[in-house]
Amino acid sequence: MTYCVGLLLDAGMVLLSDTRTNAGLDNIATYRKMFLFEEPGERVIAICTAGSLSVTQTVIARLEEANADPENPESILRAPTMLQVATLIGKLLSDVSAEVSAKMDRMKQGASASLLVAGQRKGGDMRLFLVYPEGNFIEATADTPYLQIGEHKYGKPILDRVIQPDTSLEDAKKAVLLSMDSTLRSNLSVGMPLDMAVIEADTMRVGETHRIEATDEGFARMSQDWSNALRDAFQQIKPV
Amino acid sequence: MTYCVGLLLDAGMVLLSDTRTNAGLDNIATYRKMFLFEEPGERVIAICTAGSLSVTQTVIARLEEANADPENPESILRAPTMLQVATLIGKLLSDVSAEVSAKMDRMKQGASASLLVAGQRKGGDMRLFLVYPEGNFIEATADTPYLQIGEHKYGKPILDRVIQPDTSLEDAKKAVLLSMDSTLRSNLSVGMPLDMAVIEADTMRVGETHRIEATDEGFARMSQDWSNALRDAFQQIKPV
Repeated sequence: MTYCVGLLLDAGMVLLSDTRTNAGLDNIATYRKMFLFEEPGERVIAICTAGSLSVTQTVIARLEEANADPENPESILRAPTMLQVATLIGKLLSDVSAEVSAKMDRMKQGASASLLVAGQRKGGDMRLFLVYPEGNFIEATADTPYLQIGEHKYGKPILDRVIQPDTSLEDAKKAVLLSMDSTLRSNLSVGMPLDMAVIEADTMRVGETHRIEATDEGFARMSQDWSNALRDAFQQIKPV
Repeated sequence: MTYCVGLLLDAGMVLLSDTRTNAGLDNIATYRKMFLFEEPGERVIAICTAGSLSVTQTVIARLEEANADPENPESILRAPTMLQVATLIGKLLSDVSAEVSAKMDRMKQGASASLLVAGQRKGGDMRLFLVYPEGNFIEATADTPYLQIGEHKYGKPILDRVIQPDTSLEDAKKAVLLSMDSTLRSNLSVGMPLDMAVIEADTMRVGETHRIEATDEGFARMSQDWSNALRDAFQQIKPV
């Protein structure tokens, strides 16, 4: 399993992903699920992945190969708009998933994945997409300024309560970390370390990245403070 | 969908269920999902239901028919222990589900349900079971003093944080209502009104029942207070 969340705010975009992968419960590993592509000041694209690792690794590897080839018209770094970036990535995801699933067909299994794609190109707006396994996609809006992939349920209530388009980037970072904290507590197949990226509006660059290790004292303190705050809040609620 | 939760505490048992049923998104109705059976002072049994309404209604109707027939050895009111109550109900659930599924087989569909069964018999302990669609069951313990059926994810974090075996019944009622509140906000197929029952330890009777309507002012106030408390708590958390 996986949990990735992306926020599209007036001030910028914040992305957070875990790193746990598992093939069954007895085969657990750590893989990065957040990939950043940028030409600082010109364009920035961040991708978070959930689903079959054989699909997501192949998708990312092909994107990198296309970016490295100056003749390749399918490079996401040369796509003229974020809509075309999402369309290229959606087609690639669908193709790779079909190829891998064809190999798995005789085992009566398939392989699929979903992606978050966030980015901005000079002269364009910041945009955040959720690309479905079939390659179609939806986009975050002011009404729903966040998108999630993977184990989304445990971490949704805090986002619903605190995230608005005008939320500050500092509050946004807190919110995604607390959303992840609720998920980590409830689903063992979501695990540390975490990768966080912050893209400020109109900078067309990744301004901040953090890898938050399991031993991170700041995250442990925030997690404990949130537990204590919830228990205190619970005690203050008057019974019906 | 459905959300039902049961707590097994030193002081007693608290059960809460929603009432929304749906056949598709365009056919929504209200049905009670909590059923109480008692011989006050002798034995008390509470059942909460999730899943196919045709299965759960038939299960409850057959239980009532058996209870009404003094010759029927399968009456749960005459079963000598709560373990035997859970076993009888598990077998009945499995039988009814198999009968209904056989009818649905030619449509390539099946019908299943799961149940919470809570109760106490004079001279025995309070016990709380989750009966799976196949008829097998698990039981709440001091390590995990609550069980949920239906849409369990949104309402789990608050239970994990505040419920211990020595939690008071007042706090327990608050906790299940706030757990339901998180679920109602996130899943439209869980809906008001709610049914709550409280069974105090060693009373062998249902001490309290409440139907909480959508217009209930106390519940609306608690829901709003909890939203405000969470937002305040969020503001007080220091960033990483």
